[in-house]
Amino acid sequence: MHTHTMSQDEMKACIDACTNCHHTCLQMAMNHCLRVGGNHVEQGHFTLMMDCARICETSVHLQLSGSSFSAELCDVCAQVCDACADSCERLDGMDACVAACRACAESCRAMAKAVH
Amino acid sequence: MHTHTMSQDEMKACIDACTNCHHTCLQMAMNHCLRVGGNHVEQGHFTLMMDCARICETSVHLQLSGSSFSAELCDVCAQVCDACADSCERLDGMDACVAACRACAESCRAMAKAVH
Amino acid sequence: MHTHTMSQDEMKACIDACTNCHHTCLQMAMNHCLRVGGNHVEQGHFTLMMDCARICETSVHLQLSGSSFSAELCDVCAQVCDACADSCERLDGMDACVAACRACAESCRAMAKAVH
Amino acid sequence: MHTHTMSQDEMKACIDACTNCHHTCLQMAMNHCLRVGGNHVEQGHFTLMMDCARICETSVHLQLSGSSFSAELCDVCAQVCDACADSCERLDGMDACVAACRACAESCRAMAKAVH
Repeated sequence: MHTHTMSQDEMKACIDACTNCHHTCLQMAMNHCLRVGGNHVEQGHFTLMMDCARICETSVHLQLSGSSFSAELCDVCAQVCDACADSCERLDGMDACVAACRACAESCRAMAKAVH
Repeated sequence: MHTHTMSQDEMKACIDACTNCHHTCLQMAMNHCLRVGGNHVEQGHFTLMMDCARICETSVHLQLSGSSFSAELCDVCAQVCDACADSCERLDGMDACVAACRACAESCRAMAKAVH
Repeated sequence: MHTHTMSQDEMKACIDACTNCHHTCLQMAMNHCLRVGGNHVEQGHFTLMMDCARICETSVHLQLSGSSFSAELCDVCAQVCDACADSCERLDGMDACVAACRACAESCRAMAKAVH
Repeated sequence: MHTHTMSQDEMKACIDACTNCHHTCLQMAMNHCLRVGGNHVEQGHFTLMMDCARICETSVHLQLSGSSFSAELCDVCAQVCDACADSCERLDGMDACVAACRACAESCRAMAKAVH
């Protein structure tokens, strides 16, 4: 557990980035990827999309709850977001997802450092 | 299952209302209610706060996924939101939660009707 | 809200059925369906698999929490489980999922009736 | 990402331990702790109970999904479970929760190591 030194504004920004990444990944996986098929439903890629949505959703939950473990989860979240962005960059039509994942990864890394 | 006749804008509005209600209920339950204590941690009230957060989170998930059962879940979500708003109205300092729950209930009822 | 008249054993059985259905649908969607491809990743089918996993997970959450809205959610859960079972019956290698969904639908319908 | 070297049996055991811990923490928080009140609804303790339930639920989700990040999440899960067990040991009537948390922490630590 940590002494939380992040400002309310910084945490609000991280919650917003995670919410946006959660929504974008889930919506694109279930609508864009399933409709396009092919590489978009390859197991490794699709699993990363769903993992990323779920971890971001959990990160939002812990931050809103005032959890002492938000930093630890944000650290994992940043890793998943970067892996998802890498996978999306290799496919067509996933620019919105790449942008959401990179922004979330950056915000989560700042959060993970601030509270350690 | 239903023919979805709601516009993208209306669904976007419902997702936003559910997201806001989810965040407000969870944050207030875990921060405000647990700190204030007394009536705010009475089992019936606190359970409604957490139920409401969870149902709204699930409603967001189904709508983003393009689920055929979004209307059925929105119907339950509207009921939980109204019950949570009623409970919050009997306590001090819960105005933000009342407003978020009422707005979400209204949006979910519109969603539930539109697709039937 | 309802007078809960279900026994602890009946609720335990419903929680177990929902947990099993959640686990089976999620595991088969992300492992079996994504690997097999073709009809198994058709949007309608795959969305039902993921919906079913999520609704069952939420049903478990509400029942464990002692929610007053467990019956309403179990009613929706039974509908999703039956739709998912119907979809799985049209595909190869989904017998375990059909069985888990049918058992969960039956248990959820009993739960939904008992508390009304 | 890692080469997964854990056996199916070991992962099954970890999923079961996380499921049991998730169910036990959530049920005891929302039923036992809210009913007993006093120290049981002190913010630090109650937040740990809900964090632990949520992280275990997410750990189950990632493992069932075949996620490449199960190990990273299990590492965080083990830390939360131990903190929750420590908190529960200082209160009356929480023996079942202590046992579920310790067993889950041990299983998650094995999982986190096995795949690195």
